[in-house]
Amino acid sequence: MADADLRDLRVVGRAQRKIDASDKVTGRTEFADDISLPRMLYAKLLRSPHAHADIVNIDTSKAMALQGVKCVITGDSMPITFGILPVSQDEHALSPKRVRFIGDPVAAVAATSEEIATQALDLIDVVYQPLDTIANVDQAVSTSDPLIHDYGDSGNLHKLIDLEFGNVEPAFENAHSVREDLLFYGGNTHLAMEQHAAVANWTGDGKLTLWSSTQTPHYVHRALAKVLKLPPARIRVIACPNGGGFGGKSDPFNHEIAVAKLAMLTGRPVKITLTREEVFYCHRGRHPTLMWVKSGVSQDGKIEALHFRTLLDGGGYGSYGVASTYYTGALQTVTYEVERYKFQGARAFTNKPPCGPKRGHGTPQPRYALEVHLDKVAEDLKMDPAELRLKHLAPANSLTANYLRVGSIGLGACIEKAVSESGWHEKYGKLPYGTGVGIACSSYLSGAGLPIYWNDMSQSGVQLKLDRGGGVTVFCGSTDIGQGSDSILAYIVAEVLGLDPLELQIVTADTDLTPVDLGSYSSRVTLMSGNAALEAAERAREILVKHVAEKLKVPKTRVSFAEGRVFDVEDPENGMSFAEAVQISEAAQGIVGTVGSYRPPPSEGRYRGAGVGPSPAYSYSVAIALAKVDPTSGIVTVPKVWIAHDVGQCINPVTVMGQVEGSVYMGLGEALMEDMAYRENRRLVHKIPSMLEYKSPTTLEMCDVETIIVEDPDPNGPYGAKEVGQGPLLPLPPAVANAVYDAVGVRIDEVPITPEKVLKAIKDKARGKEGRYGPTSFPDIPWPEPTVVPPPWEGGDGRARKKTTTPAESSGGGSAGSGNRETGKPGART
Amino acid sequence: MADADLRDLRVVGRAQRKIDASDKVTGRTEFADDISLPRMLYAKLLRSPHAHADIVNIDTSKAMALQGVKCVITGDSMPITFGILPVSQDEHALSPKRVRFIGDPVAAVAATSEEIATQALDLIDVVYQPLDTIANVDQAVSTSDPLIHDYGDSGNLHKLIDLEFGNVEPAFENAHSVREDLLFYGGNTHLAMEQHAAVANWTGDGKLTLWSSTQTPHYVHRALAKVLKLPPARIRVIACPNGGGFGGKSDPFNHEIAVAKLAMLTGRPVKITLTREEVFYCHRGRHPTLMWVKSGVSQDGKIEALHFRTLLDGGGYGSYGVASTYYTGALQTVTYEVERYKFQGARAFTNKPPCGPKRGHGTPQPRYALEVHLDKVAEDLKMDPAELRLKHLAPANSLTANYLRVGSIGLGACIEKAVSESGWHEKYGKLPYGTGVGIACSSYLSGAGLPIYWNDMSQSGVQLKLDRGGGVTVFCGSTDIGQGSDSILAYIVAEVLGLDPLELQIVTADTDLTPVDLGSYSSRVTLMSGNAALEAAERAREILVKHVAEKLKVPKTRVSFAEGRVFDVEDPENGMSFAEAVQISEAAQGIVGTVGSYRPPPSEGRYRGAGVGPSPAYSYSVAIALAKVDPTSGIVTVPKVWIAHDVGQCINPVTVMGQVEGSVYMGLGEALMEDMAYRENRRLVHKIPSMLEYKSPTTLEMCDVETIIVEDPDPNGPYGAKEVGQGPLLPLPPAVANAVYDAVGVRIDEVPITPEKVLKAIKDKARGKEGRYGPTSFPDIPWPEPTVVPPPWEGGDGRARKKTTTPAESSGGGSAGSGNRETGKPGART
Repeated sequence: MADADLRDLRVVGRAQRKIDASDKVTGRTEFADDISLPRMLYAKLLRSPHAHADIVNIDTSKAMALQGVKCVITGDSMPITFGILPVSQDEHALSPKRVRFIGDPVAAVAATSEEIATQALDLIDVVYQPLDTIANVDQAVSTSDPLIHDYGDSGNLHKLIDLEFGNVEPAFENAHSVREDLLFYGGNTHLAMEQHAAVANWTGDGKLTLWSSTQTPHYVHRALAKVLKLPPARIRVIACPNGGGFGGKSDPFNHEIAVAKLAMLTGRPVKITLTREEVFYCHRGRHPTLMWVKSGVSQDGKIEALHFRTLLDGGGYGSYGVASTYYTGALQTVTYEVERYKFQGARAFTNKPPCGPKRGHGTPQPRYALEVHLDKVAEDLKMDPAELRLKHLAPANSLTANYLRVGSIGLGACIEKAVSESGWHEKYGKLPYGTGVGIACSSYLSGAGLPIYWNDMSQSGVQLKLDRGGGVTVFCGSTDIGQGSDSILAYIVAEVLGLDPLELQIVTADTDLTPVDLGSYSSRVTLMSGNAALEAAERAREILVKHVAEKLKVPKTRVSFAEGRVFDVEDPENGMSFAEAVQISEAAQGIVGTVGSYRPPPSEGRYRGAGVGPSPAYSYSVAIALAKVDPTSGIVTVPKVWIAHDVGQCINPVTVMGQVEGSVYMGLGEALMEDMAYRENRRLVHKIPSMLEYKSPTTLEMCDVETIIVEDPDPNGPYGAKEVGQGPLLPLPPAVANAVYDAVGVRIDEVPITPEKVLKAIKDKARGKEGRYGPTSFPDIPWPEPTVVPPPWEGGDGRARKKTTTPAESSGGGSAGSGNRETGKPGART
Repeated sequence: MADADLRDLRVVGRAQRKIDASDKVTGRTEFADDISLPRMLYAKLLRSPHAHADIVNIDTSKAMALQGVKCVITGDSMPITFGILPVSQDEHALSPKRVRFIGDPVAAVAATSEEIATQALDLIDVVYQPLDTIANVDQAVSTSDPLIHDYGDSGNLHKLIDLEFGNVEPAFENAHSVREDLLFYGGNTHLAMEQHAAVANWTGDGKLTLWSSTQTPHYVHRALAKVLKLPPARIRVIACPNGGGFGGKSDPFNHEIAVAKLAMLTGRPVKITLTREEVFYCHRGRHPTLMWVKSGVSQDGKIEALHFRTLLDGGGYGSYGVASTYYTGALQTVTYEVERYKFQGARAFTNKPPCGPKRGHGTPQPRYALEVHLDKVAEDLKMDPAELRLKHLAPANSLTANYLRVGSIGLGACIEKAVSESGWHEKYGKLPYGTGVGIACSSYLSGAGLPIYWNDMSQSGVQLKLDRGGGVTVFCGSTDIGQGSDSILAYIVAEVLGLDPLELQIVTADTDLTPVDLGSYSSRVTLMSGNAALEAAERAREILVKHVAEKLKVPKTRVSFAEGRVFDVEDPENGMSFAEAVQISEAAQGIVGTVGSYRPPPSEGRYRGAGVGPSPAYSYSVAIALAKVDPTSGIVTVPKVWIAHDVGQCINPVTVMGQVEGSVYMGLGEALMEDMAYRENRRLVHKIPSMLEYKSPTTLEMCDVETIIVEDPDPNGPYGAKEVGQGPLLPLPPAVANAVYDAVGVRIDEVPITPEKVLKAIKDKARGKEGRYGPTSFPDIPWPEPTVVPPPWEGGDGRARKKTTTPAESSGGGSAGSGNRETGKPGART
């Protein structure tokens, strides 16, 4: 796909309707809870009321005796453990011996109605032996009694990471100034409108079908095969359209496995829909994260060395936690130039609901820390914080200190446009007391470099069927969770084949029908499934071009596709309908069907953990927030946010804007109010497990958003496209925190930035104390021996340096536009 | 696929469970009428009470005013005609101006319940102007007033055919004896247990989905696109599992198009299920056929020349009728040697429900005529009728007089085995009065050589998806109508890939999901879809072999597949699971997906109509019936039938036996009792449009069946397989008729062989008249100028002769076994 082609695009880059829009707005979309099968039973899970306890006995006989109850199972029925990551297979579908958080399921009931199933739960007698709890990370770090799991890196520390890229200490010593900060990012949850639901069906011929509101049908498939000991080919997982996922539906869940087991035992379909309260407890959301950051900078603000520590409160199980922990450190080098980088990360087990991935997975927290820290550095240096950032952008087409290969970087353009659109220079430091602006930048993945399993295989596959009637069916394992991934597939295939995207058939998220795609997480679908679709479509196009060129008696290079026709580009009348093109191809060679695959370029790091962080492409965002602070109440409102996002190339500008605005919304909630709070002195129950009490922005709190789309096509993206679904959330919390400082001169080093915290800082400042609210210490962690890795420019073996040249040498598909790419520094960052 | 491989088969040829058996026996199978969608409406068609009338006016206002009625449409809403054959596009979804049989639909209602829709029909006021009717073929031949259609070959003669292969007159003159007979084969219907049903859904984004109990989803798709003027890519037709088809669900039907239109107009799903009475009228069943046969034979019974005439009562529309007419003549040359052949066929329009294809489509009637005729010839020559047939089999691997290429022929073995198993020689002519045996032979197609549309494209396509979990999904447009075609696909792919057929996923009969397959008709699926599946599977196997051979470091020829493993055939421990084989292949080259296609060898005839008759392979059957005739009542019972069928190669002997037994059942019904009778003096109403009154055998009438499977692998069949679903019906009626003659000495030259007919013949004989019941004259037909075609052995251009050599030179795939094939006469039949 040459650059010139981008100018001729007919679908890609244009505003398009989403292909499922009609079904969504008319209510035709069938979500998992909408499914109703003949003879279907309803399941409920009995969940532990204890945060930590041994199960002494479970008596299900009274529940079994209740009229309408068809089956009651406990943990003994499914002794095999599961978990999303191979290194954290620590969950049981139902806990057989010990519960580790309030909500840990111990039994499941299937009955003829939801009411009876609920009633039956009360009839199950469980004798617990309560254990001491680990209520927070401080306790987790300081004691191994109780020990929540008998695995992990040290006591109740699930994971410990210590990586050093280049020697930071001499750089700190030589730096113009060194600064340390402590920050805390509170936990919060996804709050998808749709609660988790699943329906299992077991047919007499030994096949299991599970419909589920999951983002990752193939991983669920794998967990089912493991726990239920079924051959994978006998399991079909269908991801229903998700009513929001945001990462909260990307683990395989207890309830999915439990309904499958109940269906197998009863021979009847079984449905479960979690209550909203259960979803709050099943939460695999944002890890509460304590962070310490230390930088040594030059006089003009260049980061000569960065030392960063994180401590994550993981809750009771592993989930994605090991990856989350790596992610809190991995991307700190992608946004700006960081020549030497030391990262220490720890994840603690506590007796609270397990945390996992939420939009931005592991990166909003460190982004918050670093962007607030940089705001302080700029102040120290008396520099404009926007200017400081602009001066030290990471170079495009290069390797970072921790061996992440970065392709296109539109961050410079993002900063410039956000600054100019917002009138930054007229506002920053110049607005009246109580009003301020703050800026923050970020970068994010377009899919993880390594899949969770199957390291050496494709992450995405697409199969195409071309029909002699002109129909094209696109089969892909990807899951549309509302982000529009099905539409993206349609746009890309329609572009290549010159068709109307609404006429394509898009079949996704069904492990029987579709080739593997690892799911909707890590903002991977547009780039990865998109590249697979591009490959499959281009192969189909190639077949058609061959036969049409022969028929029209023109060279293949002159065959073009548009508006449902295939024709000689130099004489457009000389052509045929797309259907006829398929027909002559089919007559010549049989059914036309193709496959396409995508596997990202291999990780270039060779250290342990090098697999978490690499991505084929990184998006960039800049947010400037306007904040108003009422100094008498501490209430912060954000009337407006200007946000610029480098998406590489828009596939559909309307869905890009939708993702940006949704990210701003969620980031604003995290910045100001969202908080998963547990009563540490009351058995660790959730304080506010309901949508009425859990605070998140309503339309009244939502800010105006001015979205600026920056296009800097990435060599690895389909048509140059990169991610947009998660990245724009990241700069929100630090931009708001920095704006609060600009407004009232206090530093809120802890999100959410609640009125209480602001008011306390304002009062403290008025009393002459430090005008700051935030953590004051970082626990003493038994860090392991650091893994010391020379950054590429110090590597000496020439490997990294040799690869750090031009976009053309980067692997992967996609188009290579020029955009705002800085190509001045093709070598290493020395 | 070398011969040797047949010995090593692990799935093919072994008794296997049908893959849908569990769903069928547990009631899980969802038929079209089982579908229920939210907001679904119910449709009913208003059908004409007149056999022939002009529609003067239709007033739907009262019906529209009925509470619950959502839409009423008439013929004006769908002015475009449709029909299954391109040459007979003579039907309207709803007749706008004229009705041509009782049951012709004129209006359709959609309402919130079936009851309201039925009630609404009564409120539609139709003013008809009745016209004179054409009640039977005699009238159709003799008058053009009224003229039912303004197209066709002559007056009310829809189709006239006159073909002569070689000059028959001199051969008659030189023959040892010449004999003429007149016979009549009554019309009958399919009597599938499931009535026709369809559900249409129209979504706001302009996509139409139709679920239907159809045998031919792709043809329905095409008719919908034409009549509704929709782009084909916006229409999805899903053929639900059929509760029996037998040809009766292979036309696109009025009700399918009407519900689609109603769904489009109301924006709601619309369902229709025909009543049993409607099915009797919508009947596209067996054409009542009058036949005249004249043969000139040598002293030992060799047919030197054959002249054959048919006259079909087509009813009010074209349907498949042109093809049906050709079929009544085409296959008469395939069973025995016929050196010179003249065929004249005519189809008349009458004001009765249109006839079309029923099991055996157009061939049971001529088979009945010829086999009864041959029984008389044998008697004339004082030869044993079995011996006469055995002496003059058509030679294998040769062209017939009318240019049909015949591959393997197991008829000789069939005759020998049926004769020996039945104890023919001890019974024929030797049983006491009232008891007798009769023999008859037949041959049938394994799929038509030409599709109905798309002549130069594949008739079948299969797409495979291999999953890294070891799952394999087979996508094929074929339609399982109970015959087990889904299972056949599974067996073939499982055989090639060494898997358990029950672990495969078989996805069929969905125009969105599956590559085109033209449907379940003409006994085409096992051979055609089977060959496409074989090709797709072998391509997948080839991919896996390559990568496994590299991994195991053995030559590719040593890589074998069995029991879910891929291994070195010389060291079976050295191998891996099938899933691993997929995984290493995927790691090496991406997603593994393949396509396979099948297109039959081209027709070798160059005359008009040469496309109807050719098939890649012909099956052969022999039936010997034991009949008991009560001379006082005329009641015929058939206690036992021995039937031998040459299926080429069994894919699954159990399903082969099922098809043979089902064919015997249906053939017995046609022979003895089934009759579509209309009251010619009472407006042409159906006499017995209900299952209570229409006679077909119950378990009490059903005979014992001894099935003898003969395997003579055909070079064109997958693993050598040929058809079995229809052919075994063909010899039943003549075998029973011949047995009746052996029992009581009367010839019943008209089926069904009812007690009245038998009793009359017995009484006539007792009175010294001819002991025969049957037609006495053949109307004077205005035959066109004959098309005179020299048979291949007189062709002179050497084309045919050159091709008539060895199986290896035949085109197409499949295995070439030896079996009972006669290879002694590889050349032309001179």
